[in-house]
Amino acid sequence: MARWEPGARERLVVAAVDLFAEQGYDATTVAQIAERAGVTKSTFFRHFPDKRELLVAGQETLRTLLAEGVAEAPATAGPMEAVAAGLERASSAMGPMNRELGPRLKAAVATSTVLQERDALKTVSLAAALTGALVARGVPDPVAALAGELGVLAFKRGYAQWSEAEGESDLAPYTLAALQELRAATVSLG
Amino acid sequence: MARWEPGARERLVVAAVDLFAEQGYDATTVAQIAERAGVTKSTFFRHFPDKRELLVAGQETLRTLLAEGVAEAPATAGPMEAVAAGLERASSAMGPMNRELGPRLKAAVATSTVLQERDALKTVSLAAALTGALVARGVPDPVAALAGELGVLAFKRGYAQWSEAEGESDLAPYTLAALQELRAATVSLG
Repeated sequence: MARWEPGARERLVVAAVDLFAEQGYDATTVAQIAERAGVTKSTFFRHFPDKRELLVAGQETLRTLLAEGVAEAPATAGPMEAVAAGLERASSAMGPMNRELGPRLKAAVATSTVLQERDALKTVSLAAALTGALVARGVPDPVAALAGELGVLAFKRGYAQWSEAEGESDLAPYTLAALQELRAATVSLG
Repeated sequence: MARWEPGARERLVVAAVDLFAEQGYDATTVAQIAERAGVTKSTFFRHFPDKRELLVAGQETLRTLLAEGVAEAPATAGPMEAVAAGLERASSAMGPMNRELGPRLKAAVATSTVLQERDALKTVSLAAALTGALVARGVPDPVAALAGELGVLAFKRGYAQWSEAEGESDLAPYTLAALQELRAATVSLG
């Protein structure tokens, strides 16, 4: 078995999430994760510094994609159109593995306060990334903060619906539909 | 010195926040916090299980007050009026110590990922409490989630402005003004 075979990283994430959900985060060791994934412990440590980092490995990428999508939206796009462009960009990076991981990740997070805290920081930092990208486009502060929160809510709601839905399809239609639904909800609050 | 003298809990919180900000969260020990607060280590442990819990001690109370305010708003109140009632209830529990702690807490949180994660979970759980209380009033799901997020944004923004403002005054006018500002911002997004 080649030590750098493709897919080791993905297999480690799947193995870890399943073990966390099955036996709890605290009770799961790096050795168990590596064994379940069929790799050595040193392969684990080539990909992740510890078991805690494993679940937020994709976070930086997601934040970058969201912000890039917002930044590259046409100059004429309003705040919600720019957020939609960010969601589209980030959603397009999510494949079948992400879809399958959704419910298992949710089960894993439910087992541990540490994972809930990590997950919460992820949510807050995605909102900050969207808000920052909107401010950089000249969107004024309270509107940018609000649109950033809406974008994260839409991403999370769309992702949850996609994970639970049947059949093959992309994430983007789900996150964009969730954004539309939230936008409609703002009308009843205004 | 009486071991149960009034104010020990508050002095411990202030001492901890200042030490975290001065020398970082990781470098600060329970012994140092107790010494700065002028109490014994056992007094510390009568109030808090560890230094980590110390900063979220008020979180449960805040969550309860927000949810109670929403639940007890008049039956005729719309979602935003109910959120305003929650903010008013929670704001009224915040006194001069909370006001003074605001900027020092912010400085402390900046020193540590652990504290950022705790703080993020606090944000997420306050939003969940508001959303849950709104759903219990019969507010439909996407509107309740959105109004819950708006409420937390308003609380955080109002609290920050209050902490930075001069003179003596209550928190409530700040959080309610922030909510109004966000409500106006929803109009430009709808």
